Amino acid sequence: MRVTAEGGDASARRERRRPRDGTQGGGARHTDYRQLRNPFPAATVFSEDQVEAIHETALKVLEELGIKVLLPEARAIYRAAGAIVEDDSQMVWIGRDIIADALAAAPRAFVLRGAVPGRDIEMKLGTLAFQSGAGAPNITDRIRGRRPGTLAAAEQTAKLIQHFDALHLMCPGVEAQDIDTALRHYAVMRLQLTVSDKVPCVASRGAAQIRDSFEMVRIMRGLTEDEFTAAPRCYTIINTNSPRQIDMPMARGLIDFARAGQPSVVTPFCLMGAMAPVTVAGALTLSHAEALAAIALTQLSRPGAPVLYGAFSSNVDMKSGAPAFGTPEEVKASLGSGQLARHLGLPWRNAAGSSANINDAQAAHETEMSAWGAVLAGATLILHAAGWIEGGLSISLEKFVTDMEMVQSFAELCMPTAADEAAIAFDAIREVQPGGHFFGCAHTMERYASAFYEPLVADWSNFGTWTERGGKDASERATALWQRIVAEHHRPASVTDDRVEALAAFIARRTAEGGAPLES
Amino acid sequence: MRVTAEGGDASARRERRRPRDGTQGGGARHTDYRQLRNPFPAATVFSEDQVEAIHETALKVLEELGIKVLLPEARAIYRAAGAIVEDDSQMVWIGRDIIADALAAAPRAFVLRGAVPGRDIEMKLGTLAFQSGAGAPNITDRIRGRRPGTLAAAEQTAKLIQHFDALHLMCPGVEAQDIDTALRHYAVMRLQLTVSDKVPCVASRGAAQIRDSFEMVRIMRGLTEDEFTAAPRCYTIINTNSPRQIDMPMARGLIDFARAGQPSVVTPFCLMGAMAPVTVAGALTLSHAEALAAIALTQLSRPGAPVLYGAFSSNVDMKSGAPAFGTPEEVKASLGSGQLARHLGLPWRNAAGSSANINDAQAAHETEMSAWGAVLAGATLILHAAGWIEGGLSISLEKFVTDMEMVQSFAELCMPTAADEAAIAFDAIREVQPGGHFFGCAHTMERYASAFYEPLVADWSNFGTWTERGGKDASERATALWQRIVAEHHRPASVTDDRVEALAAFIARRTAEGGAPLES
Repeated sequence: MRVTAEGGDASARRERRRPRDGTQGGGARHTDYRQLRNPFPAATVFSEDQVEAIHETALKVLEELGIKVLLPEARAIYRAAGAIVEDDSQMVWIGRDIIADALAAAPRAFVLRGAVPGRDIEMKLGTLAFQSGAGAPNITDRIRGRRPGTLAAAEQTAKLIQHFDALHLMCPGVEAQDIDTALRHYAVMRLQLTVSDKVPCVASRGAAQIRDSFEMVRIMRGLTEDEFTAAPRCYTIINTNSPRQIDMPMARGLIDFARAGQPSVVTPFCLMGAMAPVTVAGALTLSHAEALAAIALTQLSRPGAPVLYGAFSSNVDMKSGAPAFGTPEEVKASLGSGQLARHLGLPWRNAAGSSANINDAQAAHETEMSAWGAVLAGATLILHAAGWIEGGLSISLEKFVTDMEMVQSFAELCMPTAADEAAIAFDAIREVQPGGHFFGCAHTMERYASAFYEPLVADWSNFGTWTERGGKDASERATALWQRIVAEHHRPASVTDDRVEALAAFIARRTAEGGAPLES
Repeated sequence: MRVTAEGGDASARRERRRPRDGTQGGGARHTDYRQLRNPFPAATVFSEDQVEAIHETALKVLEELGIKVLLPEARAIYRAAGAIVEDDSQMVWIGRDIIADALAAAPRAFVLRGAVPGRDIEMKLGTLAFQSGAGAPNITDRIRGRRPGTLAAAEQTAKLIQHFDALHLMCPGVEAQDIDTALRHYAVMRLQLTVSDKVPCVASRGAAQIRDSFEMVRIMRGLTEDEFTAAPRCYTIINTNSPRQIDMPMARGLIDFARAGQPSVVTPFCLMGAMAPVTVAGALTLSHAEALAAIALTQLSRPGAPVLYGAFSSNVDMKSGAPAFGTPEEVKASLGSGQLARHLGLPWRNAAGSSANINDAQAAHETEMSAWGAVLAGATLILHAAGWIEGGLSISLEKFVTDMEMVQSFAELCMPTAADEAAIAFDAIREVQPGGHFFGCAHTMERYASAFYEPLVADWSNFGTWTERGGKDASERATALWQRIVAEHHRPASVTDDRVEALAAFIARRTAEGGAPLES
């Protein structure tokens, strides 16, 4: 019986021919996810006139309304450039000429340098890099449940990040809350620098911690201070305190990173209806103004310092005030942010993530929606693309794995699609008779082992087989995978004993000196 | 403690101000998802030269290799147009002139007419319509588990389809396997025509069943035969039997629908490595050839008959032969198919779906990936966008609901994004002081009730609240939602008692005559 041509054609599907001796046809699949170029045309939500109107209004916000800057040194830098500063109120009014000069000075492209050239990542409009969920206070997995982040948990996420080439930068996935804040940066930087050869993330928590962190990067990379400042070797995430405020550690980070030639990823976190206007255009106007002010501070601190424009705007649930991610409004905000970034010509970051509390269909839906929004917006760097759950309050190790299926799929979509004579395969079509199948034909046998992306966690078996195997959902299957990846972690070749020892010596000395207290 | 600027800013998120009297600011949100235009620039995987090469090779396949056509009447039609036909082998070799004439005759746009003008759906390049999962042999839900499709189950899916404006066409979600095949089309057509005012789907299972189905549409729409054939009022899905074969009922459907002025949705189902070459370009070459042959048959049967080009190409798991959906290869095939459809200038269908066996992160990931592929490919009609699981062998009622979050999000993305002076909100930005919030400002109060898409099933509460409420995942929450939608179904106003009675009388007469046996 022909139940349904599409759904019920199961017998044809089951029909197959393949070598039973375990050999693979054609040779194994080779993938290179390390430096991606975004293959999609940028999508837009605004006209060019509207983009210009948002940019002009943001300039007017900075000129007429001003921005509160808590760090006196930062206000002094703005003042020296000609901005109007009122120290009592900590307000700074920034003229459009200052912004224009800063935008002229900011580099359109730069390369973040890893421990080895294979981990270098170019940042410019058109490149595409992913980063895992970062900085969550909690971690959760199916074995141990939800709990506060620890250094051990951060080590697990670091090993997962290192494992996947499609995650381009290192970061602490969760906050090591079991380490004293005056010493935490030593542990977290050591972790990033010894588990991975990718570019590490430095938390901007005061001048002393930043100085220590830079020193650790220099030690592990074997660089003089001049060599270090000559090229980006690490990065920091700078969130303004929307609306219209830059706090002490954020301003400190912008200044110190710029002076050291290291990039800040400037990211106002403007939730529509909460810290920003309820409209997409209004939230982006505020976000853009704050980003311009922060970018200006980097360029006033050191003209030409690498910097990423950033935007992370979503909406809140107006019934509860809860932040929402993966919403249509977030996608629209991402697309608009991409237009503003291209208006400036700067590389920029966006984000993907979910507000779900468990790794379910909502979690996947929200993460995929926001990730597609970021990709179609032409984001250079997409943060939080794996594991980010509860709106960033937890990293889920199972979601990390299931999200990587998405991230790797994006990486696959960056690969070219062959359409030469061999790929068009007229001869194979001739070889297979009407109603036959291609499982055994030469064209298939030569290619089948490398033809398709091999999934991480997807189970494509039929319902009967899947049920016999225990009926496990994707999260249940993901547990074994993250456990195996963590267990099989190998120290990268670039992490040598002498440097690890030098790092340990530095940390021992600084710890004996009392570490570096958190500044806020 | 500043745990993390992005993830840990929970206190700011919880801060909010809203009216406590239940009134809504600004007025309720108005949405119109009924006739969508695709807002995204079409993404591509091939150069124009490569598209031309695939098209040329497909023409060569039809000219030199031919296609097997099982229905003698169809072969006669091809022969009369000048094709070379060999009745012994049932092979037809179709010259490129025949294809060119057919493509010249096929309309670039047409309107599928529902029971009321509000259900009319325009089909052309640039419009965007979604359809639910269709024709699955099984149904599954959390209450009753997985079981064979029945008429009662089809009624549930029909009520869900009718409920959501973002599902633009009616179809039987599951196969009513409890109804004798000679009578099933009466029950299924009656179901579609009485539960819904949307355009119904007719299964092409032989001339008599098609004739009966057309008559039922005429009765319910109050149309003469001439009025019926003057405009599309229903549609059928035609799957070729890849590779290179069109079976009896499919050829019958192509002919009879064209003669009645009703559209066929021509869809080769070309799984790479199984029924088609293992390469994307090869699978699309075969798919394109088969689609051209089928489109030609419609235009030879009645020049100018409405028809949709179609493509549904994904890959199989080469280890097991199992079909896979939502893979990078499927997305690439969709993008390439869109290029081929635009090469022809015809409206076209694509699909979204998943091979997962449960409504988990895999199911959502695969569905979102394939849906985004179809949207970015510029598909006019996206089938299987809600509920389709197990590669089409089941409809999951919970997945139906969670998928609708995605479909409605796409519909929201089709809506314009305001960026006038009021939306840019300079005055609101001025009103809110640095470090303050926008919850209570006038700009927010005027808009908050209608500013954002309101989710169907997403739960944005924090982990504590979510846990207190029972810690339900999206699928568990979806159960109550589909149950409510089904329970609250109301018969559309266009479904009047006199027409329902006329339909019942027709069905009674035809049933007494023995119905219409399935032809295959």
